Amino acid sequence: MFELDRDTELREEAPGRFALELSDAWGIYRYPNGGFLAALGARALGRALPHPDPLTLTAHYLRPAEPGPATVEVEVVREGRTASTGEARIIQGDKERVRLLASFGDLSKHEGPTEETGSPRPVPPLEACEPLTGPPPGSTFAERIEARYAPGTASFLRGERGAPEIGGWIRARDGRPADLWSLILFADAWPPPVLNLVSRVWVPTIELTVHLRRRPAPGWIAGWFETGHLIDGYLGTDGELWDERGRLVARCRQLARLQSS
Amino acid sequence: MFELDRDTELREEAPGRFALELSDAWGIYRYPNGGFLAALGARALGRALPHPDPLTLTAHYLRPAEPGPATVEVEVVREGRTASTGEARIIQGDKERVRLLASFGDLSKHEGPTEETGSPRPVPPLEACEPLTGPPPGSTFAERIEARYAPGTASFLRGERGAPEIGGWIRARDGRPADLWSLILFADAWPPPVLNLVSRVWVPTIELTVHLRRRPAPGWIAGWFETGHLIDGYLGTDGELWDERGRLVARCRQLARLQSS
Repeated sequence: MFELDRDTELREEAPGRFALELSDAWGIYRYPNGGFLAALGARALGRALPHPDPLTLTAHYLRPAEPGPATVEVEVVREGRTASTGEARIIQGDKERVRLLASFGDLSKHEGPTEETGSPRPVPPLEACEPLTGPPPGSTFAERIEARYAPGTASFLRGERGAPEIGGWIRARDGRPADLWSLILFADAWPPPVLNLVSRVWVPTIELTVHLRRRPAPGWIAGWFETGHLIDGYLGTDGELWDERGRLVARCRQLARLQSS
Repeated sequence: MFELDRDTELREEAPGRFALELSDAWGIYRYPNGGFLAALGARALGRALPHPDPLTLTAHYLRPAEPGPATVEVEVVREGRTASTGEARIIQGDKERVRLLASFGDLSKHEGPTEETGSPRPVPPLEACEPLTGPPPGSTFAERIEARYAPGTASFLRGERGAPEIGGWIRARDGRPADLWSLILFADAWPPPVLNLVSRVWVPTIELTVHLRRRPAPGWIAGWFETGHLIDGYLGTDGELWDERGRLVARCRQLARLQSS
C-alpha cells in the first residue's frame, strides 16, 4: 500500500462519519499541509458520493490541523445523474479545521468538443530541472515527495530574490502512480512563490480550489505556480498541473495571507 | 433603493434563515443567473458574519433556481478575529438550488506589502468598446446591466466565430455604484466566451469561485474572460475585473459544461 493511500485511509464509524489518525509526515513543522487535507476530504467524499472523480473542490482552512486523531464528516448535498455534490468537514477535538465543498462526476464519461487555447506549459523538460540540495527547513514533505525545480524559479530556496513563480516536476517518492487524489495534494505541495518576494513569513492558505480536468498518466507531474497579485499582505496563487504526456490535468488557485513568522 | 439591493433584500424569519421573492429580472430565459445567486448568498452571509467583506466565495449550482419564493439558510462555520467563514444554502420548495461557502474579512484593515506582477488589463479604454445593438436573446439582464464589448471579442453576438475571449466594461443601468456585491454579480454576468467556439448550447455553471481583492471605485468595471481549456465538453473560464482607476478588484473562475439547447 502506498503512503498517500495508507495515510488517507478512513474507517467508517457511522454513516457519513469517518475516523483516522492524521499523520505528521505530510507537513511543514508537523502541521499537515493544505493539499494533503484537501485530498483527505476528497477521499472521504469519494466514499459517500456515487461518482468516482472529483471535478471541482474548494477547501476553506479554518484552523491548523494537528497530527493525531481526526474525524471526517461527510454530507451528500445532491446526487444527480452525471454529477453529485458533497461537503466534508475535518474535525479534531470539538473544532472544525477544514470545510470542503466538492462536485464529483465521471471523467471517463465526459463527451463533447475539446479546444485548448490556454497558455502552453512553461515548465522545462524534466532533465532541465534541478533537485534541491536539501529539503526546505521543517518540511516532512520532502521525505514523501520528490521535486525538481525549473531553473530561475524557487529563488528563495537558494537565498535569492526572484519573480513570484515556482515550477518544476513532482512525484511520490514511493512510486505511487499519479491520480486525481495526488493531483489535489500536488496543488498545494510547492513552496509558496511569494517567498521569492518576501522572507521570514508564514503563508497560511485561506481557501484552495482545484479543478480536476483529466485523469493523469501515472508518472511525473509538471507544475507551475504564480502569485500575480500580492495586495496589502493577501495573495492569490494560480497553479497548473500537466502529466508526462503534456496534457493539462488540473488547475488550482488559492487565496492566502502573509503572517509574520 | 437600487435594483440590485431591492432584489437581494432579505427578511430574517428566524436566526440564520432569510426569505425573499426571487426576481425574474436577473437572468436568461427567466432563470436567475449564477452571479446574481452568488451575490444573494453572499449578502445573506454578510448579515450573519461579523466581518463586512467577502474575500473568497465558492458557489456550487445544484439545480436551476426559478423566480418566486426562496429561502436562504446561513450557517456560521467559524468566527475569527481577522476573518470568518460561513455557508449559505438557497432553497426553493424542498430543494436546495445553490450551496455557497465563503470567507469574509475586512479589506480596509488588510496590512502588508503590495506587489502586482500579474498580466496588465487587456481591456481597451471604455470609449473604444462597443454597446451591443440588441440584448442577447432571452436575457433580462440587459435591462439591468449596461455593457460595452471590446472589439474582436464576443464574436458570436455578431454571428461570427472567434477566440474564446470576452471583455469590456459593465455597470448597473440604474446608477448603482459598483461595490463588492456587484463584483460578484459581474463575475458571471457576461456571455460565456466558449460561445465564440461552439453554438446552440447552454453552458450551465457547475461551480463559481470569486476572490474579492479590493473595494472598487464606484463607476464602470472592466472585465476580461477567457476559456483556455474546453475538454470533452467541460470548460474552465477565468475572469478578472478592474475598476475605473485601473486597479484589479476581483478574480474569478468557473467550471461549466456544454449542454445541447
